[in-house]
Amino acid sequence: MNLNNASKDQLTQWEQQLSAEYAAIVARKLSLDLTRGKPSSDQLSLSDAMDGILKGNYKSQDGTDTRNYGGLEGLPEARQLGADILGVKVTEVLAQGNSSLTLMFQTLLHAVHFGFEGPDSAWRRQGPMKFICPVPGYDRHFTLCEQLGIDMLTVPMTADGPDMDAVETLVQTDPAIKGIWCVPKYSNPTGVIYSDAVVARLAGLGKLASPGFKVFWDNAYAVHDLGDSLPLANLMDLARAAGTENSVVQFASTSKITHAGAGVAFVAMSEANLKSFKQSLGAQSIGPDKVNQLRHMRLLPDLNALLQHMKQHAEILQPRFDAVLSALDTAFAGTDLGQWEKPAGGYFVSFDTRPGCAKAVVKLAAEAGVKLTPAGATFPYGLDPEDRNIRIAPSVPTVAEVVGAMDVFVTCVKLVAVRQQLANLS
Amino acid sequence: MNLNNASKDQLTQWEQQLSAEYAAIVARKLSLDLTRGKPSSDQLSLSDAMDGILKGNYKSQDGTDTRNYGGLEGLPEARQLGADILGVKVTEVLAQGNSSLTLMFQTLLHAVHFGFEGPDSAWRRQGPMKFICPVPGYDRHFTLCEQLGIDMLTVPMTADGPDMDAVETLVQTDPAIKGIWCVPKYSNPTGVIYSDAVVARLAGLGKLASPGFKVFWDNAYAVHDLGDSLPLANLMDLARAAGTENSVVQFASTSKITHAGAGVAFVAMSEANLKSFKQSLGAQSIGPDKVNQLRHMRLLPDLNALLQHMKQHAEILQPRFDAVLSALDTAFAGTDLGQWEKPAGGYFVSFDTRPGCAKAVVKLAAEAGVKLTPAGATFPYGLDPEDRNIRIAPSVPTVAEVVGAMDVFVTCVKLVAVRQQLANLS
Repeated sequence: MNLNNASKDQLTQWEQQLSAEYAAIVARKLSLDLTRGKPSSDQLSLSDAMDGILKGNYKSQDGTDTRNYGGLEGLPEARQLGADILGVKVTEVLAQGNSSLTLMFQTLLHAVHFGFEGPDSAWRRQGPMKFICPVPGYDRHFTLCEQLGIDMLTVPMTADGPDMDAVETLVQTDPAIKGIWCVPKYSNPTGVIYSDAVVARLAGLGKLASPGFKVFWDNAYAVHDLGDSLPLANLMDLARAAGTENSVVQFASTSKITHAGAGVAFVAMSEANLKSFKQSLGAQSIGPDKVNQLRHMRLLPDLNALLQHMKQHAEILQPRFDAVLSALDTAFAGTDLGQWEKPAGGYFVSFDTRPGCAKAVVKLAAEAGVKLTPAGATFPYGLDPEDRNIRIAPSVPTVAEVVGAMDVFVTCVKLVAVRQQLANLS
Repeated sequence: MNLNNASKDQLTQWEQQLSAEYAAIVARKLSLDLTRGKPSSDQLSLSDAMDGILKGNYKSQDGTDTRNYGGLEGLPEARQLGADILGVKVTEVLAQGNSSLTLMFQTLLHAVHFGFEGPDSAWRRQGPMKFICPVPGYDRHFTLCEQLGIDMLTVPMTADGPDMDAVETLVQTDPAIKGIWCVPKYSNPTGVIYSDAVVARLAGLGKLASPGFKVFWDNAYAVHDLGDSLPLANLMDLARAAGTENSVVQFASTSKITHAGAGVAFVAMSEANLKSFKQSLGAQSIGPDKVNQLRHMRLLPDLNALLQHMKQHAEILQPRFDAVLSALDTAFAGTDLGQWEKPAGGYFVSFDTRPGCAKAVVKLAAEAGVKLTPAGATFPYGLDPEDRNIRIAPSVPTVAEVVGAMDVFVTCVKLVAVRQQLANLS
């Protein structure tokens, strides 16, 4: 199918054929959901041994009674696991509660209101605040910016990561730019891994940008490979080498490793930054849930055990990704109907329709019983300027459900595009 | 012992005698600690059945898979327990993570920066911010104010609660006053329960104070009775009757019920306030650890089960409180050496030395191997203007250790006071 070269007759014929297919789908009264980037029940069950795993021994390796108050930094062994996931020193990591999003908020709040280098360094004291958001991206990051009064500027995502020419130009020309959001491995939603060159240039931004600038590095899918473990350049090592280690803050969690809502989250930054951050963290918390951290360490005592555990996740996820990618390939390879990456991990496949079609596709699919993430959700303020991007999240449905949902999706993408092209020609 | 009426000879004799006693204590090379308001290991063990209590069933009463993301408000059954503890409607409570302190920070942050009635109502947009702090009080409350740039004004605590004449005068004369901290039952550290009249007047402050004023009601010891369950007037009922329900926010947690660092915290407020608060909470969290909430509900399915559980805590705590109160009574009843309340619950006994003695007592006790909470810690900015108040926390040591530590404490109080009086006379 190639719409740009198709005659009006051809388009009309396709429209009739696709409309019939769509009507048949509607008649099936489906109820399928590709919206949620969360683990399936089968994946969650991989960690069910955590309940009862302590067997009366609530002591951490250093003898701490995890049941009591205290220990703001988290258990040493949990910090070590976080350090291994993120590739930093154990002294640069805190192991905290169940949400890396909360840690991102706390870190951003610290930068905006309290200041990493004392009250005068608080971003809000320096006029307007802006963040660079590579798009498509993660809506929760955008919400954090909105909540804290930070304006957002977008740059395009490429197959190698953010368009670094655009990023470098922005940070050098606009001193209000305080940071950039990054999901460096299996990026949400495009699934790409940032190239070594991109990571090196991100590490170098601290030298180009205004003082206090921070790369917010949300490494949510650091160990979430479907096949072999794919490498990602070490941001902190590169920043250390560049003398910009105070310009990067990193996040990870076990949310998509153990139980999504009951995991352990990690934040990593230079020891100087951490010392500052702990002052505001210590005002708002007596310490994280150490018992839950201990449960995690008994289940996954080190990075190797964790990587073995992730292989079980991959076995469950792989056929779902295969179903999505195979449907897209069959329907759209060699056409002018859309573009997508082929992620080797993470939770999403990101599909770009022809311009101006995404909202209509999501609406049509919903009317046929297939829920998709709202079009625009992957852009700041919910505004996809070209109305193209749709995030597909195949982890929760069964493989058969994914196949069924993709059948609908493909039909809707084609039908909307054909109708649009027909309208263009008339 | 009565110092005001004692002759110089008598004081000199006491000084010599007490110095000798103190020297004998130092020779014993004690290492005791009365600083920490946290449960003992025996108390924590009362809840050890939580590990393994789920037995593979991770579903809440409404069928939610607690392992996955979501559920910002907390499990319905956990919210019900919080509602029962705080005496509010279930729709007025959120069940959250392991720290009520964090909820207090988040609530205060919402009021200061985001605004309960929209951005224009944010306290920071209205000039200077002040809080009333009844003293002695809880140092963590003061730290929250300092962290968020809120100045603190003190009012005296009485045996009935805060001095409400002073409080009412302040809120009517200073529009910068945005709130008041309250620990209404077994107050930290004096151990008093606010009288019905005081609670009613607190509920009425919303009518006297400037718009947006909030009573921060930290009911940390709501069910922490040593003997019979003692009543506390219902703040929300009184506020509802007075039409001031938007002027109260309440907090509680299971920290001193189950595992101190791994409990469930609750925040309660009017439905209008909650709707506003959830907007900022929802930006920073995808939801609390519902698995841990489920563990709690399996251990303590309702308020009655919880109250039975608290009786076991009381059995452990009672002899420790008896040891403190009996030592104080034996040493100081009928003297002019100090004052104290006799708490029937909570975690503390608060002792007021003669003016100007508290720091010296804490120092002398430390030199004899007995750690006490730093003098001044119970006042904003760490400044006790009369240098009188010392917080005694007897929960962690054994009964024998409490007896030994109180022996040292009593000797130090006497010795410092006698030396001071001698110095006054010379």
